[in-house]
This record gives sequence, C-alpha cells and structure tokens, in this order.
Amino acid sequence: MSNLTRFSVAPLHALTRRLAAVASGREAADLVITDARMLSTYSERISAPKEIWLVGGRIAAIKPSGAHKAAPAPRAVYDAKGGILAPGLVDPHIHIESSMVTACAYAEAALLNGTTTIFCDSHEIGNVMDVAGIQAMLEDARLAPLSIYLTVPSTVPATSPELETAGGDLTPEKIGAIFDQWPEAVALGEKMDFVPVVMGDPRSHAIIAEALKRNRPVSGHIYGRELVGAYAAAGVTDTHEAVDRDIADDLVDAGVWVFLRGGNPATPWNSIEQAIKAITELGASHKRFCLCTDDRDADDLLSFGLDWVVREAVRLGMSREMAWSMGSLHGATRFGMDGEMGGLGGGRRADLVLLSDDLDVHNTWYGGELVVENKAVTPLLEAALSNRYLYPPAAYTTVHLPGRPKLVPDLPNQKTTVNAIGIEMPGIALPHRKIEIDAANDWSSILQSNALTFVTVVERHGKSDGSVGHGLLHEFGLKEGAVASSVGHDSHNIIIAGTNEADMELALHTISDGNGGIVVVREGKVQAFVPLPIAGLLSDKRVGEVAEQNRVLKAAWQEAGCTIPYMGFNLIPLSVIPEIRITDKGLVKVPEMELIPLYDNA
Amino acid sequence: MSNLTRFSVAPLHALTRRLAAVASGREAADLVITDARMLSTYSERISAPKEIWLVGGRIAAIKPSGAHKAAPAPRAVYDAKGGILAPGLVDPHIHIESSMVTACAYAEAALLNGTTTIFCDSHEIGNVMDVAGIQAMLEDARLAPLSIYLTVPSTVPATSPELETAGGDLTPEKIGAIFDQWPEAVALGEKMDFVPVVMGDPRSHAIIAEALKRNRPVSGHIYGRELVGAYAAAGVTDTHEAVDRDIADDLVDAGVWVFLRGGNPATPWNSIEQAIKAITELGASHKRFCLCTDDRDADDLLSFGLDWVVREAVRLGMSREMAWSMGSLHGATRFGMDGEMGGLGGGRRADLVLLSDDLDVHNTWYGGELVVENKAVTPLLEAALSNRYLYPPAAYTTVHLPGRPKLVPDLPNQKTTVNAIGIEMPGIALPHRKIEIDAANDWSSILQSNALTFVTVVERHGKSDGSVGHGLLHEFGLKEGAVASSVGHDSHNIIIAGTNEADMELALHTISDGNGGIVVVREGKVQAFVPLPIAGLLSDKRVGEVAEQNRVLKAAWQEAGCTIPYMGFNLIPLSVIPEIRITDKGLVKVPEMELIPLYDNA
Repeated sequence: MSNLTRFSVAPLHALTRRLAAVASGREAADLVITDARMLSTYSERISAPKEIWLVGGRIAAIKPSGAHKAAPAPRAVYDAKGGILAPGLVDPHIHIESSMVTACAYAEAALLNGTTTIFCDSHEIGNVMDVAGIQAMLEDARLAPLSIYLTVPSTVPATSPELETAGGDLTPEKIGAIFDQWPEAVALGEKMDFVPVVMGDPRSHAIIAEALKRNRPVSGHIYGRELVGAYAAAGVTDTHEAVDRDIADDLVDAGVWVFLRGGNPATPWNSIEQAIKAITELGASHKRFCLCTDDRDADDLLSFGLDWVVREAVRLGMSREMAWSMGSLHGATRFGMDGEMGGLGGGRRADLVLLSDDLDVHNTWYGGELVVENKAVTPLLEAALSNRYLYPPAAYTTVHLPGRPKLVPDLPNQKTTVNAIGIEMPGIALPHRKIEIDAANDWSSILQSNALTFVTVVERHGKSDGSVGHGLLHEFGLKEGAVASSVGHDSHNIIIAGTNEADMELALHTISDGNGGIVVVREGKVQAFVPLPIAGLLSDKRVGEVAEQNRVLKAAWQEAGCTIPYMGFNLIPLSVIPEIRITDKGLVKVPEMELIPLYDNA
Repeated sequence: MSNLTRFSVAPLHALTRRLAAVASGREAADLVITDARMLSTYSERISAPKEIWLVGGRIAAIKPSGAHKAAPAPRAVYDAKGGILAPGLVDPHIHIESSMVTACAYAEAALLNGTTTIFCDSHEIGNVMDVAGIQAMLEDARLAPLSIYLTVPSTVPATSPELETAGGDLTPEKIGAIFDQWPEAVALGEKMDFVPVVMGDPRSHAIIAEALKRNRPVSGHIYGRELVGAYAAAGVTDTHEAVDRDIADDLVDAGVWVFLRGGNPATPWNSIEQAIKAITELGASHKRFCLCTDDRDADDLLSFGLDWVVREAVRLGMSREMAWSMGSLHGATRFGMDGEMGGLGGGRRADLVLLSDDLDVHNTWYGGELVVENKAVTPLLEAALSNRYLYPPAAYTTVHLPGRPKLVPDLPNQKTTVNAIGIEMPGIALPHRKIEIDAANDWSSILQSNALTFVTVVERHGKSDGSVGHGLLHEFGLKEGAVASSVGHDSHNIIIAGTNEADMELALHTISDGNGGIVVVREGKVQAFVPLPIAGLLSDKRVGEVAEQNRVLKAAWQEAGCTIPYMGFNLIPLSVIPEIRITDKGLVKVPEMELIPLYDNA
C-alpha cells in the first residue's frame, strides 16, 4: 500500500455496518492487537490487558484478551505483550514550515513520535505564495501518511505594505474561498494581530467573521493579561501563547482553550512549565487544556515531539492518563472531531500507539496499518514516503532579487546616533538601543568598537524595484563572515547579517542560487547551508536528511559566535513583536508601527 | 420586546467588533451584573465577587467588581448581591412532547428552571405527522424564548407496518432533507432500534449515514452491556439510557458521551443515582458525562427541572462546579456548540442564571434579557409568551377513527389460554403471562376472577380501514371504568383499558371529540381529561395550566387503582421493549418481533 494517506480509511458512514458486524462477531476483524493495557482518554484510566479489534482501518471494539479465538479468525493478530495501547496524538497547533520539510516528509517524524493528526497553520508559505502556496501544501497534505487539517492563515501579511513587502495578501474573500473549497480547512489560524483585533480593526474582524459564519472556530495568539477579555470577546477560542500561569488562568476562564506549548528547553518556546501551573497551582480543571508543539526545526522535531510534551506534562504533575488525553482527545474535541480520533472508541480511526510504562512510543498504527515498529519506520511506511507530492515549478522560483542590492549602509560622515537592534536571549522581544558612533573612514572599526553587525533585509518577492532595508545589530556576536536566511518572518524576505559586504554577498547569492535556504559564510566560504528551494522555506528531502543538515548548520552558527539561535535570527524582521525590527522598508518601531531612520542625526 | 426568541441575539460574527469595544472600555455595555461570584464551567471554580459586562445579548467580559464605574456608563447595572452567576443550563436530550405542551410553552418552565438551551428530539410528533409535524415544531421552536435545537427523529416508525400502523415514516431521504433545510437540526436523534443497528439493518445504517456524512453526531439509546461495543462501532456517540454503573462505565470507555438522566424518583426514569457511580465508584473522569431530563410530564417539569438534576449530582458526590458544568458546558461541547453557550466566556450568549449557594435558581437572563426574577416570570417574558406559534389546522385533526370500532374481544367459547400482558412496576418491561380462563357467558366474571382488564389499541391515523388490536392486561388494577390516551408510544394510536365497553367507548369518544388527550372515566362520567388537541400529543395552553390538569389526571388515575402511572400506560404499545406489547395489529412479542394471538387455542 504505497498510497497510504488519510483517505486510505473510508469515512465512518461507509463502514458502520461492517464495524457492527465485526464488533458483534459475525465477521472477521482485519487485525486484533491483543494483550494490551488500554489507555482510555475518555475515562482517564489504564485498564487491565484487553484486546482491540480493527476493521477497515477503524476500531470495531475492545474485548477481553483472547476473545478473538471464539470469533471468525482475524486476518492478523499482534501481540502487544502487556504494553499500553493509546490513541495516536493530536497536535492542535503546528507550523510545518518551521520544520523546513514538506507535509509528506513531516509525516515520518510525526509518526515516529506517535502523532497521527496535526492541525497546521500554513502561515509561512501563505506569506510567500498567497493562496497558491496554501493550496500546494494542502495537496501535499493529502498525499501524506498523516491526518493533516488546516487552520487557515488569518494574518497575511502580518502588518501592511507600508511597513514591509510580503508575497501574500490573504483578504477575507480569499480566506472564505479556502473554507468553501477545502473541507480540511477546519478553523481559522492564529489571529496574530491581537492588538488590531482588540482595537476593532475592520479587516481583522471581517476575517474572523468568515470563519464564524461558517461555524469554524478561531485560533488565537495573544500576549498580555490586559487584552484577554476583549480578545476572547472577538470570538477567539484557543491560544498557544500562554507563557505563564496567570495568563493561562485568565484565558481558560475567558472560555479560551489553552494549548500548553512544550519545546526544546534551550529555546524560548517551552512555555508549558509555567503555564501548566494554572492547573497544578491554581486548581483549574485540565479539561480545556491541550498540548501542542507549535514550531520545531527538523532536528528538534525528532527529539522533542508531542510525545515528549506529554511526558513533560507528567513530570510537571499530571497523571499519565490526563496528560495523554490532553495530547490527544482534548485537541480532537477542541476542533469537534472527537468522533473521529483521540480515543479508543468504537468507529474511530485506528490511529494507535504502543507505549512503555513511561509513555515512550514504540509502535504506531496509522489507519490500522503498522507504520512504526520498535521505533523504526516499517517497510510499508518507507514505501508510502516514496510516493511524495511534488510542488509545482512556481514554488521553486520564489527568490526574485533586485539587480545587485547594496548590502551595507552608507558610512556616517559625522558623529551620529544609531538606532540599533539589541540582541539578547531569548531572542523574541528585541530592545531598541541608541548607540553613539564617531565618524570613521571604514565600517570595520565602527563595528568592532561598538559590538555592531550589519543587518540587511532584501525584498525577494519581485514586488518592489529593489527594496532593501539597512540596520545594525548590537551584540549579535558574529565574529566574522555572514549569516543569511530566506526564512525571515513573516514576509520571508532575505535577512543577512555580516561583518563585511563580500561575505554578505556570498551568503545572499548562495541563497539566491539555491532558491532559498539558510547559510553560514566565513572567510569567503560557505560553512553550512540548508537548501530550502520550495518557497524559500522548505527542503524537498526526507526529514532525517534535513535534520542532519540542520545540525551542521546549528554547529556552524554557534561556532560563528551568534548570540541567538538561527530561529531567533529569522524573527528579526517580524514587525509585530516589540521593540524594534527591520524589514525591507527599514527599521520598524513596535508597537507604534512606524518606520524610523538608522541614524537619528544623519 | 414581545418577540424575544433565539434570534433576538445577533450571530457572533456580526458582533465581534462591538464586543471588543465594550470589553476594552471604548463603548458602553448594555448591562453590567455586579457583585456576583462567577461559576466557571471551564476551570470548575467559583470566583470571588466580580462583574460581567454584556452587550447585544452576549458576554463582553468579566471584570473586577465596580470596574464599570471607570468605563462608559452602562445602560443598566444589576446588583447580584454576592450570589453565584453561572451559565444557563443546556439539556442535551429531551422530548418536548412528554411535557404535553408546545415549544413556546415549554420555554416558560425551562427558564424558571434555569435552562436556556435544549436539544429536543421531536420523535412523537414525527410518528404522528411525519415531516410536517417536525417542521411545525421547529417553527414553534423558532418563536420560543429559548434556544431549541433538534436532534432529528431517527426511528420512525419504531418497528414496521406489519407490526403497527404509524402516522410517520421517516426515510433516510426525508431525514437528509431535514438536515439540509434546518440549520438547527444539529444531530441525529436517539437511534432506538439498537438491536437492528447492531445486526446491521440497512435502513437503520442508511439513516445513521445521513447524519455522519454531514458531520452531524448520532445520539443513542441502548440497554444491555453486551451490545455496547457494536452499537458504538456503528457511529453512535451518546446515550441517556445508562441505567446502572457498569453500563455507564462501558459506554464512556467505548467513546460514547453518557447523559445521566435524573427524574422524579417516583418514576423509572431516574437513572442518575446508579449511573453516576461510574464516576464516584469506578473513577471515570466526569468530563464525558452530561446531565439530562429526557421526559417530564408538565407537572414534574416544574418540580424536577435540570437544575434539580444538577443538585442531585451534587448530592451524589460531585462538586457544585463539576455538576453545573456537566449540566451546561458538557452538553454544549458534545454538540460542538461550546463557543456559543455553556460558560461565561467572551462572545457567548448572555444566557445566565443567578443562584443561591445551594444552586437554587433565582434569576434567569436569556440573551441578556431578565426573564425570571426571584423565581417569577418577568413582564418581559410574559409578553414574549403571549406571542406564540399557532400550529396549522392539520395538526388539530389527527384523530381519524374507523367507523365504530369494537372495543372488547370476542368471548372465548371454551376454556382457553390467554396471552396476557403482565403489568408491574416500574412499568417499562412487561412480562408475558399465560392465564387459563374458563368459558363464561360474560366478560365481567372472567376479568374479575383473573385480575384482567381489557386493553384495546385503535388506529387513529386514517391509514387503515379500522385496524383494532385487542388484548388483556394482568394486574393493571383498574377497579372500574376506563382510561385512555392518544399518546400511545410510538405510533400514538389510541390505547384504551377498561372494565366495560360502555366506559371504554366514552373514553374513546372523549379523546376523539377533543382531537386527542388522556382521560379517566368512571361510572359513565369523565373524571379527568387533559385535552391534547395538537397531534393528539400537545395542549395549546400555558405550562402552568397543563401542569394543573396533569395533577388532576394523576390523582384520578391513582384513585382508579391503576398499578402503573399513566406515562407507563402510554408505553404499553411500544413494541420495542420486552416482553409483550399491543399495537393496532394485535399482540407483539419482543424481541422476536412477531404477532401472537390473544388466545392460544381459540
């Protein structure tokens, strides 16, 4: 079955008679998994050993162990040897693009982690390729051996054409059309512009209305306790940005589902540890909490999957049964799909995992097919992964550079004050720093004596006539050379930081020649390069290969001295996070949302 | 506002900007309810006193008490004096017809009980009037000051034309058309024919498919642990018939939402006391349990509302917060409507109740309008109740009797064995009793010496040419006279029990003249009569008046000596419950589903 996809399992309405016949013992099951302790996400208990009968890729019934011996002989029996059988995990909020792989490739990592359903927001490819990018990723998703649903990107572009040049412009009309054309578009994606939403911006509310009038829920993204009430009033019913106990607590009582986000603890995206205290310290019921991953690079994706987040929840005080339910049933319930997945109930898809007592994932069945066994991809999944979606040619030509852009700013001809972008961990909010510099004959001494690094954003959508923004990073730490990326949130223009123009040019052309990627250049040579030829965001390789490229890149990145990781670097153009950012239009002050010059008194 | 209905509150998508403006303090609220402890059904906690801001009939935000003094002056402020404010109750399974009133009249009782949303299954009127009856009740529901959603009747007729003559025949096609035409048709109603479902009956599964292929959930109704697995496998995801701890436990682990049914403890429908033990004794999480009422006569409706069921859940071991959530948020979540109701979250309908510490309902706001205050209907609700739906003339002419039916069976002309229907409490399953009788010249001595009573079912849909079934009840207890009802589940032919033909004829004609009703006749006189002129099922009076008629009827019924209450009597023709029933076609053995003669050796 090389075409193992979500559609390999027939819809429930076409299978109810067969399921009832198998459950009643009138017809044979396709597969019986016997001697497994069943983790019920419904009642939150682990049972004594039983067996589960599957047919047509769905669950017929749970029976006493050995019951199949008195029934029509099943086509296969799998001995779970007393392990814990649980439903596959359901990730209610992720961005595939962060993993730098296609949906088909993402599926491999997800299944290894025991994740069988994801709700993805293809916000990044939408920013580059507009509706065409989202539709390409949906086609990709339909060929993947994974259940991939879309939360339609809601905030493209993140700001406005005055502040940055984006490749996409998702109007309310385009968003409504996506809902109407794609049944897997089940919700509106994270409404990132929470300040405009709270302030009543007409376009933001028109986009929300497109979802609500179709009975689709609206996902959110919000910082700050003071705005929670108005944001919830605007119809937003989930968020994954609860970074501490008190905002998580406010959100749940405002009727907002809280997705606790776990991640590599070395990154700033691991907010579960604080937010879960709304449950463990403030006594909120866990029933409106889910677990999610949000963003994972290809490397972390394999090590910090949703299964890891579940184990973190256990470490932080939840029972195993509660934690697994928060990682499966709760996400399905939030999207009204708990009749299809998230538990071992009758009629549900047979998306199953076999766990050790510490919730380590050993096996995964997707739609009743064994795709991971003893933590390794099975031949069946290998075959399915070879049957991958090919993105259209237009997706491979999204880097359109203006002639030969100037990559460093003019030398100041007098003592002046620089509006620099301060770089500090964790690399999300970036402080505005005013730095006095003296006149000089060359940049080299200015940069060195002031801990400054060039930063340049080059428009790459072919929409401007050479729009380039120049800035200076303070304490970025790059010792020598240049780093650059075609993943520059959210417009994904090319961001380059460097100590000299020649290395910056090499970095830019490496990306341009590869139609996208992330690169480290030193001494005139490419030290590491992750090619991302699809939309300048995605590799077309398998996840293991991209993860390896990713590890090489991270090592070179660190060796180059950069004080924030590359994922933080990619956020430097994200002109919705305080305090100062840079786009192809120049420096942007947030939240004033205004352009400011590089030099105060040039 | 005499037209207070569900539609008085605009859809959320049309109100998000206004809600955000009020929540942000830029615009004035319509109403602030201040100094109320907030019961969060999301986190399951009761807060310290706060205040809630409403606009457009929806919730803008919860704020610290007194916060409105620093905001644009609200149009009104209501002082809750420290009481508990909670969301209105959501009843996930009820039959309006059991209360013998229209949807508009039902609303009054519901609001007095703090119930603001119901999911009704208009199964009875569907059995009498087919699609036209369901549509009339939906029109009725749209004019009611209550949020009434439909679970489309799934099992009409309950059996087949060979076994009984029904007024309705809801084919898969008709059911699909109801889904497509009525957005408030949110689920398939209880699939009562659980044995055919489990056995794979094609029509039953075709009906289930009509719901599932439209992503509508399927409600259930099942007895017996052994069938749970196959029934769940057929796509059924709720039930309200869990009559004991173990079946409730099986059901929840099979992925079926369990609706714990509370009711007058004097009736057999009060199953919560046993079923809740799946939580309190077996340790199942309560998160997939709801509370419901199912059936209530007009009298019990006022005394044993869903608020009473919530208090029962508390008495049986749940916390107040859990119990109220099971009575509100959980039902809304089960039907995917938790963004609209069931909690005090932003953007939700302002369906609110003010409670004492023991969860006694004092006030109810429906869509932000005060409809019950200090346990009394407000003038605003009085006005709304006067604006009632009038059923069409066809609904008032549903009793079509065959000429002059013969109401008693032929005297046996020899010693014979009667296949009698045994009557015993609780009045649901009825045992088949074989009784030897001698030949006699008149019925009177046979009845008296054998504790027998005539029972006759007269077809009243005008579909047969005088179809009449004769039987004998054993130990029904009626001392003298006759009782009769046009509510004879599920086909609602007229069922008459009596000790003599004259009183039976008077009973029948009283019902026929009134176009329906329930009557007690003694000594040639009508002792009590509840007229039910709409479809032979519903009164067109206010609920208080019907409740009073209902009390008079129950007193007369008891005085007449009947050993089961009239609601049990109405079930005698329900030919899907073991062991022997009677329809207009004669005696039916269940579960064999075959007709048997009255006399074995006639």
